[in-house]
Amino acid sequence: MPELNRQVLLARRPVGEVSPMDFRIVAAPLPKLQDGDVLVRNRFLSLDPYMRMRMSDQPSYAPSVALGEVMVGGAVAEVVESRSPQLNAGDVITGSTGWQLYAALPAQRVRRIENPVSPLSVYLGVLGMPGVTAWVGLHLLGGLEPGQTLVVSAASGAVGSVVGQIAKLRGARVLGVAGGEEKCRAVVSELGFDACIDYRSADLEACLRSAAPKGIDFDFENVGGKVFDCVLGLLNPFARIALCGQVSQYNATEPYALRNLRSLLVNRVRLQGFIVSDHMALWPQAFTELTSRFAAGELKYRETVASGLENAPQAFIAMLRGDKVGKQVVKLDDE
Amino acid sequence: MPELNRQVLLARRPVGEVSPMDFRIVAAPLPKLQDGDVLVRNRFLSLDPYMRMRMSDQPSYAPSVALGEVMVGGAVAEVVESRSPQLNAGDVITGSTGWQLYAALPAQRVRRIENPVSPLSVYLGVLGMPGVTAWVGLHLLGGLEPGQTLVVSAASGAVGSVVGQIAKLRGARVLGVAGGEEKCRAVVSELGFDACIDYRSADLEACLRSAAPKGIDFDFENVGGKVFDCVLGLLNPFARIALCGQVSQYNATEPYALRNLRSLLVNRVRLQGFIVSDHMALWPQAFTELTSRFAAGELKYRETVASGLENAPQAFIAMLRGDKVGKQVVKLDDE
Repeated sequence: MPELNRQVLLARRPVGEVSPMDFRIVAAPLPKLQDGDVLVRNRFLSLDPYMRMRMSDQPSYAPSVALGEVMVGGAVAEVVESRSPQLNAGDVITGSTGWQLYAALPAQRVRRIENPVSPLSVYLGVLGMPGVTAWVGLHLLGGLEPGQTLVVSAASGAVGSVVGQIAKLRGARVLGVAGGEEKCRAVVSELGFDACIDYRSADLEACLRSAAPKGIDFDFENVGGKVFDCVLGLLNPFARIALCGQVSQYNATEPYALRNLRSLLVNRVRLQGFIVSDHMALWPQAFTELTSRFAAGELKYRETVASGLENAPQAFIAMLRGDKVGKQVVKLDDE
Repeated sequence: MPELNRQVLLARRPVGEVSPMDFRIVAAPLPKLQDGDVLVRNRFLSLDPYMRMRMSDQPSYAPSVALGEVMVGGAVAEVVESRSPQLNAGDVITGSTGWQLYAALPAQRVRRIENPVSPLSVYLGVLGMPGVTAWVGLHLLGGLEPGQTLVVSAASGAVGSVVGQIAKLRGARVLGVAGGEEKCRAVVSELGFDACIDYRSADLEACLRSAAPKGIDFDFENVGGKVFDCVLGLLNPFARIALCGQVSQYNATEPYALRNLRSLLVNRVRLQGFIVSDHMALWPQAFTELTSRFAAGELKYRETVASGLENAPQAFIAMLRGDKVGKQVVKLDDE
């Protein structure tokens, strides 16, 4: 076992776009264990849009990361040393370890993966928090019927790709919205969506309208801003909105003026903002369905893998810009 | 019985603020009855914000009023002639008769009032559609607990005044938002709200924050725009929004850019747009509670009464501007 840990700290709070200068990479002693703790070695870090909010000191559902603290985040890791009877060295777990090579945390705050499949990164994506988030959002709003039209923004992302595939398996017509031709192609050809619209296209609204000739019954919203506005304009009566993210707005210093907010009233829309961590009781049910569909080959996934802790900031910035397809992870195996 | 009817027609579609020139007042023959119809003489017309939307040709939940047609609207009326076994001459009813002295409509589309109290205008306000709308909005979103804080915009209006009084009877802390000192005074001293904030005040947000030191758990939203934005900024986790109207936006040609929309996600807010006519099955339950509370003196109301059909357009415009306190009606008795 090495003597030193390595960590990515929050060095300053970003204003607008995140910069590599907002982070600092440092060496640190290995953390000390208390009774009930495990020491874990991270194998893959998860990079997710919500982390942008945690870098800000605006009030949110979770505390901000303090300046000089380790960046918050989940990982799939291997237990190196255990002072808990619940876990043994060699066990694979997921947990909120932060952006570092090693972490010590109470055994009851990690989730043990039985019979892990390879690559372990799937437990950060399709079989991890993003997959469960997709499942929970569809579950909370309910009522998606075969033949109805669902649209999901950030369709090629870790959550969006699972949303669309589950909705498709339930008989819905599924439209994605994503940035760029390559992503749109992947969403249709690899993930099996009925159509995918490039939000950068000149007339997003017209494209969306022609892809949703019967209007939109369910919006799984990850993006906000202009894309959300266009979707609002096409909602059917009694449509539902699972509000999961507003990634277009996290970097924004001026809010987008929605033109179609009146649709919420006119169409008697139900909207629910949600965060998966409020619904952990649903995790086993969600995980069981996702795991069995994944094993049956019914759920595809894409991921972008960065390599090495020092590349986490750049990979995070690229993920926020939407440059990549699928789940963004950082592989830490070879350090 | 007179030979002639008088009617207010939609003469043109308003752009921005409604003008008296958007209406035309005409004489017309008395309508003909078919089997099952009743001829009614309107006693009080109801003037309501939703009518502004019906003057526009933007898609909405209900068809626009066609140019040259009678303005849509509800009234309390007396049956003059009946060709239905369900109703007799002299019965008092409410129904969607339009802005005119006489209307013919199928008996099954009107609601008979048993043992009507005086003034009949209460059946357009506290015991009519606005009162039932208040009740239904609270019912649909549910979960308002004693000690929680509810805010209602357009608090001195027909819906808002009932929302606040019911919420107060259920043990909530109730804040109103209204326009002008006189209305705010009435909302507190006559309707018994805990506080009322003048949205024209220089620092609406600070006023609202100091009136809601524990944050806002329930927003009954009638106004939209800046007031809604301030409320969004003060919502507590798991807050609920009954989205009933956006009267500030009906005249707007440019949408208001909400700064605090992120609150919907951060606070995992549930929002439901609703229209009372989707929930007519709840009417008897709502009407029973409202009637008994009204009889017990627990529900106060205020109304502004214009007199004469020819004054309906000006009264409607004043109501949209928010000049008046309480329910706006037009008395048609003396013509």
